[in-house]
Amino acid sequence: MPADAFDQTKAALLTLGGQRVWSLMVTLFGDLAQAEGSSIDGPVLSAVMTEMDVRPEAVRVALHRLRNDGWIVSQKQGRTRRHALTPTSRQETLHASARIYASPTAQELGWQLLMLEDTATAHREEMAEQGFVPLLPRVYLGSSLSKPPKNALVLTGGNAPGWLREQIGAQMLEAEYSAMLPVLQLAKSSLNSGVLDALQTTVLRCLIVHNWRRIVLRHPTLPRTLLPNDWPGHSCHILVDTLLNRFLQPLPDEILPS
Amino acid sequence: MPADAFDQTKAALLTLGGQRVWSLMVTLFGDLAQAEGSSIDGPVLSAVMTEMDVRPEAVRVALHRLRNDGWIVSQKQGRTRRHALTPTSRQETLHASARIYASPTAQELGWQLLMLEDTATAHREEMAEQGFVPLLPRVYLGSSLSKPPKNALVLTGGNAPGWLREQIGAQMLEAEYSAMLPVLQLAKSSLNSGVLDALQTTVLRCLIVHNWRRIVLRHPTLPRTLLPNDWPGHSCHILVDTLLNRFLQPLPDEILPS
Repeated sequence: MPADAFDQTKAALLTLGGQRVWSLMVTLFGDLAQAEGSSIDGPVLSAVMTEMDVRPEAVRVALHRLRNDGWIVSQKQGRTRRHALTPTSRQETLHASARIYASPTAQELGWQLLMLEDTATAHREEMAEQGFVPLLPRVYLGSSLSKPPKNALVLTGGNAPGWLREQIGAQMLEAEYSAMLPVLQLAKSSLNSGVLDALQTTVLRCLIVHNWRRIVLRHPTLPRTLLPNDWPGHSCHILVDTLLNRFLQPLPDEILPS
Repeated sequence: MPADAFDQTKAALLTLGGQRVWSLMVTLFGDLAQAEGSSIDGPVLSAVMTEMDVRPEAVRVALHRLRNDGWIVSQKQGRTRRHALTPTSRQETLHASARIYASPTAQELGWQLLMLEDTATAHREEMAEQGFVPLLPRVYLGSSLSKPPKNALVLTGGNAPGWLREQIGAQMLEAEYSAMLPVLQLAKSSLNSGVLDALQTTVLRCLIVHNWRRIVLRHPTLPRTLLPNDWPGHSCHILVDTLLNRFLQPLPDEILPS
């Protein structure tokens, strides 16, 4: 491995943008300390954030904000502070994890098309929450798991023509996935397992999960039959899964040399 | 039967409107002389049209027009003229008859929803010819027999919510059927079989078929599951079928007393 392969990958992941410190921390807690009773010590948090080029005062501000928002609790234990998710944020994290860490080879779902009685019946945001993407005014597509509003016309999907798959693909953050794809490819080809230390592994995972979740949580899950064969979201999903399986997360206590 | 029951029914049918003379004749030839080799003698045609309050000169003008259009041919046979459909108009008449004389108890079809790639892919008229009614821009409904254009998204219909059935019903000439319904009800309740002579029977059938075909041929056939339970087109269909079976058409030669 070239000496700078990790730094190169890290820099590429950091330039994808949207790296707000508090948001990065949400990702970190979700990836590293999601389990009940799990926490991150202050020095570990500092080390990880420093490795991601975040200054200590920005960490303090973000910690303050996350505590105020009820996302984390901090407790003194001897001379160190331990930070942990709250019961509420742990629930939200678990919920999001089902999508963030989903296997790209999961059983394919069917799809459905629905038409609302009128445009006032439901808002786009509510429909997105139920797993539907807009196709036409009043017309939405979703996987067979999406829950249609009462009284909607619901039809079971079958074969989807190419133009429909292209149209849906373009709505599904194609540009964002296309920007992320080469960075993941770089990570996969330049970083071998076993060569990163626990801190580097933590940082790499955090940046991958962070960029991934910022895209994947912004659109409902649709079955592949509704998306173009070359939709970059598929390739990203496979690479994210490969990398997270290659670089398994350490326990929070193993990150700093004792 | 009250002495004026026939006249009352006839007047009601005539006031439904749209009784252009040439169009009435198209109906008459379709109902009375559709069979290969069948024709209507001049005196019979005159008697029927007179009974429908059409003046002789209007009959002459209409005959002239229909001959010019290639719809009928007229041949002298001895001292009378015989009028008959041409091979082309017989074909068109047969085609339309499949819908005009369809049984209201025919096997129910399924339905399909289709979405076109863009609004330019097909015109409403072409879609209507293929048996589709518009639902939204780019979105159409049709029976399972309708032929979707190549490359359309096609979904098999299932349960249709009430609002959809109402919306489709309103598009399916509900007002026209509602206007025709009481006239057919009057005919059914006031006219018993066996009491009309051959000329009256011919006129009654001609006016019923004429008003019926003017509505039914203007929209594609959709299965009942897509239409409101109280859609007046259903009731009209049943009454038209009942009346046409009660008053069977005489042979053209039986209409005038010899």
